[in-house]
Amino acid sequence: MKKNINIAIVGLGQIGIYLYNELIVKRKDIETKTGKNINIVAISAKNKNKKRRFKINKKIFYSNPFEIFKENKIDILFECIGTSDGISKKIVEFALNKKIHIITPNKALIAKHGDKLSELAERNNVNLEFEASVAGGIPILKTIKEGLATNKIKKVYGILNGTTNYILSEMENSNENFKKVLIKAQKLGYAEPGNPKLDLNGYDAFSKVRILSALAFNNKISKSKCIMQGIENIELKDIKIANQLNYRIKLLGISEIINNQLFETVHPSLVSKNTYIGNVNGVMNAVITEGKPVGESVLQGEGAGPGPTSSSLLSDLLSILRGNIKYPFGISSKKRKFIKTYNNDYYSNSLYLRFEVKDKSGVLSSITNQLAKFKISVKRLIQTPDKKNKKATIVIITHKTSEKNAKKCLLIFMKNRNILEKPKLIRLYN
Amino acid sequence: MKKNINIAIVGLGQIGIYLYNELIVKRKDIETKTGKNINIVAISAKNKNKKRRFKINKKIFYSNPFEIFKENKIDILFECIGTSDGISKKIVEFALNKKIHIITPNKALIAKHGDKLSELAERNNVNLEFEASVAGGIPILKTIKEGLATNKIKKVYGILNGTTNYILSEMENSNENFKKVLIKAQKLGYAEPGNPKLDLNGYDAFSKVRILSALAFNNKISKSKCIMQGIENIELKDIKIANQLNYRIKLLGISEIINNQLFETVHPSLVSKNTYIGNVNGVMNAVITEGKPVGESVLQGEGAGPGPTSSSLLSDLLSILRGNIKYPFGISSKKRKFIKTYNNDYYSNSLYLRFEVKDKSGVLSSITNQLAKFKISVKRLIQTPDKKNKKATIVIITHKTSEKNAKKCLLIFMKNRNILEKPKLIRLYN
Repeated sequence: MKKNINIAIVGLGQIGIYLYNELIVKRKDIETKTGKNINIVAISAKNKNKKRRFKINKKIFYSNPFEIFKENKIDILFECIGTSDGISKKIVEFALNKKIHIITPNKALIAKHGDKLSELAERNNVNLEFEASVAGGIPILKTIKEGLATNKIKKVYGILNGTTNYILSEMENSNENFKKVLIKAQKLGYAEPGNPKLDLNGYDAFSKVRILSALAFNNKISKSKCIMQGIENIELKDIKIANQLNYRIKLLGISEIINNQLFETVHPSLVSKNTYIGNVNGVMNAVITEGKPVGESVLQGEGAGPGPTSSSLLSDLLSILRGNIKYPFGISSKKRKFIKTYNNDYYSNSLYLRFEVKDKSGVLSSITNQLAKFKISVKRLIQTPDKKNKKATIVIITHKTSEKNAKKCLLIFMKNRNILEKPKLIRLYN
Repeated sequence: MKKNINIAIVGLGQIGIYLYNELIVKRKDIETKTGKNINIVAISAKNKNKKRRFKINKKIFYSNPFEIFKENKIDILFECIGTSDGISKKIVEFALNKKIHIITPNKALIAKHGDKLSELAERNNVNLEFEASVAGGIPILKTIKEGLATNKIKKVYGILNGTTNYILSEMENSNENFKKVLIKAQKLGYAEPGNPKLDLNGYDAFSKVRILSALAFNNKISKSKCIMQGIENIELKDIKIANQLNYRIKLLGISEIINNQLFETVHPSLVSKNTYIGNVNGVMNAVITEGKPVGESVLQGEGAGPGPTSSSLLSDLLSILRGNIKYPFGISSKKRKFIKTYNNDYYSNSLYLRFEVKDKSGVLSSITNQLAKFKISVKRLIQTPDKKNKKATIVIITHKTSEKNAKKCLLIFMKNRNILEKPKLIRLYN
């Protein structure tokens, strides 16, 4: 690799502008560590004059990112726009074809088009790096690709979304409901002000699960339909009850090989307060890998925000500057395989079920009878009357039962007129 | 790098023999991931016929490791003997001079001679890799060198020795004293059967601290005198009292930049049960890095044993097979600097002090007066009488005080005839 390296940044949102500043501030340090001189020769965003956290050099600003390549020889491109398709995809394809290295924190793009883009990078003998796409500053992808490279991994799981983990922790701490805490999260910059949906509904965590699977199991990114649930329906009441039972509610992303088949999911889970994962609170992310011979490894750190994300983007930059052309997914695309998908119906867990019922005799037994019919056995049961409103809350922790059973059973409860709301189901993490 | 790679392993103890087997079992996997064929062409140990966990190929056995190079062209050498000097040092120097890559889990060697060996490797344009020397299977060195490469790290600390962490955890769990638990640890293979001293007295953890500092702060390995204490004097009584006060005792290794000076230490610490580090139990290791902009990162995993160690050794192998010549300490030896050492006297902590005293009036006040003279103020005090033996136990948690003060003050207590044993001092981790 030559000594002077030309860099372009496309997208100057929260991440892009922070990265821009870091590259300027750390220029010397990067030279010490790699022997290369980096120069930011082009930046691009929609609006040249928008107020930004750091001042930009307007002389190198392009409104149309494709114009960049007409006037400059770019060696490394940072894609920080962040959509799964559209301009993000187009510019990455365009650049790879021009033998330009790509670094991106864009999980949506990689989770959707990573296989194709990886092939394109390999064909053009350039790097496509996306460490920042999963768990912010935690170098989990590098750890799986390199640090644990020869381990046989059977499971990767963890807390992959900082926004939802903050909201769940803060609901517990402040005793405030979901809506109020969401507004607080938005004010603090932990949740998107406009549309926080992709964090809340589990989609963001799910993209990360797909990427983690592909690295851990060397499979092509799966397209199968999975159980994906977010935290929008978690009520303060559930958090409080969980607490009394010595649990916390966490949004877990899980990827696992069961009977040689791939199982991926994202859903809220009751985890014991005595476990490691039950104590990862606030905006923290944590990823746990179970492998042989290494055993269980845990990586924890700040999962979001421009600081941690930049740390990973620069780590990818250094890796490229040190002259390592690597397979984006650790091994050659040709050698990555398809793994059959595990049938969701067989996924089984203990369940937390909460019923809001009319406080009259026979209701409890009608619920437990129904459960028994579906061979769902009760492990713990707590009934709390609300005399004033002639209501009662029934919480049941079941023994392990399959997804199929649980779904069927819940449907039948819908018809029970003594049950006042749709029963709440949260899986326990075993 | 050529396609066929010749490998030699020197030292076939617990680690060496496990590695030998892993290399054979994972040969195909390594080829898939790197495109290289590896061949173990030579192994060496003292005793050819010793009973080992896996069968060796005696045809490639050498009693004298230096003979290996007369008959074979070696590309990569695993040094698994494990001494800081002697044959370990000689063979590594010899091999580096012959342009042979070195991979080793030998922390004693690296902590003592890492600077010189690193220069030698750089001069010969080969790799010297030692991921396995710190925290077993946790890829902490790679994470600092690469994953967090452009962060400004100000502190690295953690539980760096699995043996001592197991002993402390097991004393708490089983209510048994140090001696009994040590024997158990030896039986389980967690402590050296012959001479467990280097684990127990903090030396092992200290070597790791030195290596971590060098990577985190880009300094030459420090030779300064430091506070190094092991766990040999931790009594079950202290563990129990700590427990009542909501603390656990952990052997912490700490490396930190204070006022632009380097401070390194290993000592038992009282850590709150509510903290992350207070919940890393058993043989687990954990390393916490505080950096900018990444924030706090945690890596946790099994810190010892042939499985995790092998995982790191193979990770280093893959890195070499992928053709990356790297600076052993992340940056060129020429650019690594000396950092002035922080004066230990100024190191300050809250202290746990335990006094075993005669149960008579005036004793308590003589102790507190003494503390007051040295401006050590008391935060918490618990006196437990032992009427039968006319004794009492006084436990004091102090506010923060300097090392210098604490040392002087303890010396004076030695003269107090009402104090029956040397007072016990354990620092609190703040």
